[in-house]
Amino acid sequence: MSQKMDKKRAVSPTRQENYPEWFQECVKISQLAEPSMVRGCMIFKPHGCALWEEIKSQLDRRFKELKVKNVYMPLFIPVKELQKEADHIEGFAKECAVVTHHRLITDQKGELVVDPEAKMEEPYVVRPTSELLFGDAMSRWIHSYRDLPLLLNQWANVVRWEMRTRPFLRTAEFLWQEGHTAHATKEEANAFSKKMLHEYARFVRESLAISVVEGQKPESEKFPGANITYTIEAMMQDTKALQAGTSHDLGQNFAKASTIRFTDQAGELQFAHTTSWGMTTRLIGALMMVHGDDDGAVLPPKVAPVHIGIVPFLMKDSDPSLILGYIDRLRLSLENTIYHGSPLRVEVDLSDERASEKAWRFKKMGIPHLIQIGMKEVTENTICLVERDIMDSSKETLQAGSYVEHVSDLLDRMQSRMYQKSTEFREKHTFFAHTKAEAYTYLESGVGFVECFIAQDPSIEKELKDKYSVTVRCIPLETLEETGPCIFTDKKGQKALLAKAY
Amino acid sequence: MSQKMDKKRAVSPTRQENYPEWFQECVKISQLAEPSMVRGCMIFKPHGCALWEEIKSQLDRRFKELKVKNVYMPLFIPVKELQKEADHIEGFAKECAVVTHHRLITDQKGELVVDPEAKMEEPYVVRPTSELLFGDAMSRWIHSYRDLPLLLNQWANVVRWEMRTRPFLRTAEFLWQEGHTAHATKEEANAFSKKMLHEYARFVRESLAISVVEGQKPESEKFPGANITYTIEAMMQDTKALQAGTSHDLGQNFAKASTIRFTDQAGELQFAHTTSWGMTTRLIGALMMVHGDDDGAVLPPKVAPVHIGIVPFLMKDSDPSLILGYIDRLRLSLENTIYHGSPLRVEVDLSDERASEKAWRFKKMGIPHLIQIGMKEVTENTICLVERDIMDSSKETLQAGSYVEHVSDLLDRMQSRMYQKSTEFREKHTFFAHTKAEAYTYLESGVGFVECFIAQDPSIEKELKDKYSVTVRCIPLETLEETGPCIFTDKKGQKALLAKAY
Repeated sequence: MSQKMDKKRAVSPTRQENYPEWFQECVKISQLAEPSMVRGCMIFKPHGCALWEEIKSQLDRRFKELKVKNVYMPLFIPVKELQKEADHIEGFAKECAVVTHHRLITDQKGELVVDPEAKMEEPYVVRPTSELLFGDAMSRWIHSYRDLPLLLNQWANVVRWEMRTRPFLRTAEFLWQEGHTAHATKEEANAFSKKMLHEYARFVRESLAISVVEGQKPESEKFPGANITYTIEAMMQDTKALQAGTSHDLGQNFAKASTIRFTDQAGELQFAHTTSWGMTTRLIGALMMVHGDDDGAVLPPKVAPVHIGIVPFLMKDSDPSLILGYIDRLRLSLENTIYHGSPLRVEVDLSDERASEKAWRFKKMGIPHLIQIGMKEVTENTICLVERDIMDSSKETLQAGSYVEHVSDLLDRMQSRMYQKSTEFREKHTFFAHTKAEAYTYLESGVGFVECFIAQDPSIEKELKDKYSVTVRCIPLETLEETGPCIFTDKKGQKALLAKAY
Repeated sequence: MSQKMDKKRAVSPTRQENYPEWFQECVKISQLAEPSMVRGCMIFKPHGCALWEEIKSQLDRRFKELKVKNVYMPLFIPVKELQKEADHIEGFAKECAVVTHHRLITDQKGELVVDPEAKMEEPYVVRPTSELLFGDAMSRWIHSYRDLPLLLNQWANVVRWEMRTRPFLRTAEFLWQEGHTAHATKEEANAFSKKMLHEYARFVRESLAISVVEGQKPESEKFPGANITYTIEAMMQDTKALQAGTSHDLGQNFAKASTIRFTDQAGELQFAHTTSWGMTTRLIGALMMVHGDDDGAVLPPKVAPVHIGIVPFLMKDSDPSLILGYIDRLRLSLENTIYHGSPLRVEVDLSDERASEKAWRFKKMGIPHLIQIGMKEVTENTICLVERDIMDSSKETLQAGSYVEHVSDLLDRMQSRMYQKSTEFREKHTFFAHTKAEAYTYLESGVGFVECFIAQDPSIEKELKDKYSVTVRCIPLETLEETGPCIFTDKKGQKALLAKAY
């Protein structure tokens, strides 16, 4: 196509040329994931799997500090049990994988087919969420106020039979965590759902270096069954919004549907107040869409599976043993450096590929620091460093000792630069609209997020959706109390964020 | 039933009375897992989930040290792709969960049913293993000798539609890891499959405190498609065997079925040599069956989710603030103690239940150290310690400072005692049979493992199975080279281990 060889960009098309296609290509060349033979399901390659493990481990550590305990529920849910949810929740998701048989047989033609005789007694769905099983377990595990709060979480795969899929952002199977908690009071449940939202926001900002707006969903966009749905919304490089995590205050709705009751200190039987909150592998899609560039992924140091990629530069007149020995000592010093609680992760590419190929591989994968070592570096006791986020301008030579001493600072500075860039990008592409006309001008030109006062009203939201494929992403928590005349109806409105979204 | 209140045993029936029922009951009261509304599937409760996480994290750390990388494959496998495996493997497992539809609808009666219109274009099975997907990925990821060895692993849930299930030991859904590696030479593949077996054996011995025999399966018990299947076999308290992990040298069989080829250094196209190896949540069943007693679980300190359970003893004349303050300081000192690389995990039960109830809860859960603190301990600056594995005889009072100083040693000593007990039990219940008659006497009386020289012969194995439900568990690696006349046929035989097995 229009691959510009002069600029030596690894991804074609570029973000400018075709953002959705750039994304697909970027996922591929970054070695994070690849499509599989199963419709809408991805293979997490080692790099992508390690990235998710890092995200998971940081979130999990924090959950545990908050006294949340992990459980593991069965993969299947009996269809007849889903009836409960279907009864009380209008928007029950019905697109799911249904298990109806339990055996394959070889037919007369020698082909493997579903055995018609092996129909299950009752059909099961593959969990689209384990909400129902959590409700059922909580109804058995909670008896008295002594059992509260009950703070549970699950890390698992879930399946939703999506029609149109996109790597990481929307896949039939995805990995996630779902937290479910039960509390004795309304206030405590609400406070906990907010606390988890703040935790999510903190993690996404501090570890993923993504700027997010914390907000409350309008009635129309709430999770079915929730009293309040809290959300964090991030802006991608095409200025569309991406919901990066949600936390729900379910009031007593869920407890009533699942009969989660407890005897309070006065001996009275009460329904519990529950919350739920989740984050998914979609976060990896967000990482790519926010930080990726026309050369591939750019991973924030705090979650990068490899912090430093080292490439030996062997020329005809080099002494390989000198270079490799030098690299070994450097690697050792770096691996003895603790970065945010864990040793730095270093990868040395010793294969017999060309050095330039190796350097490109590390760049495409988004490894924060690329280090090249040739005879010159060995002789001068230096390293040649390229910082991934500012690759085009950052190539510099540092004393090896000084690099090892300051490597954590350098990585932290990269982390800050990336977060700052994401924040500035979002701020630059967020516009306040004083009037409907102004809002429509912004929305028509697709410039980014539009802030305005709006009264919650289904007809306005329908118009926004129909005309501009735009939704009310959230009422930002920071300005939750601010009110003003709705730009559409002049009624009392709240400051809302409008945007197209993934 | 026959609950002996005088002995105050928590599990009824006892191991002596009814071992299988004791096991079921023990799983329940230990808080590890409970049955679910899904046939043959368990709920991993917080205690069981934490135990699996600990097992997983230790194994995973070791895999990573060996340069094995994790990937994640899709949950589903198209039935038509399974044909490949069915073609080349006789014993292809056909009992699996089959997904045939992708939508539920509400019918005229208002009931949620499978939408007959939403039949999938092709049926999928829920992975009973991801072997096929690994083969497919390897065939794409391996091109040249540079890509070898390729060392991959996956942590995932798998499903096998078992007819008779038993918690942890045999469940429809279970959690496991499956490693798949590809190598350039036959020797390297074989060495790697043996290395993984040794790793498994080391982990089970050192961390789970379970004595195992490392061996090679006879031809008849091999994994379909393997050249050699290595196994570790443990003895349960009813003297039955349990296969705790397997590692397969697949030769080029799997590479041929999946077309995994590489260009060698001479430029020739070659089939790779592959291995696979796996461990499952069955290990938790083994832990229970080997170490559990008539009061519940007994968890080895190296994998226990909680090392120390502390119970405050508040009497009428106690000063709660003194006791709780004392416990707080003790907890802090303990949590600052590093035990095999991680801080000690301490749980203090501050609920308003009776102290004796709390102590029983910790005992049933198998927490290694139970500590009770009342006014006496506060006044004398001591702790009252019960060690779970020798509970009936171990209650002792120690100076608090001395306990904190020596707690790691005490836990290590418990770990050694448990391993020693498991080893002695296995040795005590293993008998060498010089003749067929002698072997049959042992097998008839069901005394444990029977060692004897045996030539591999399907008719002998059939007889053993039919008559005594006994199989050749393995040819122990330690005596692999020893030969002697087969006690059944007088042909040249190898020293084999016979036993009933789970």
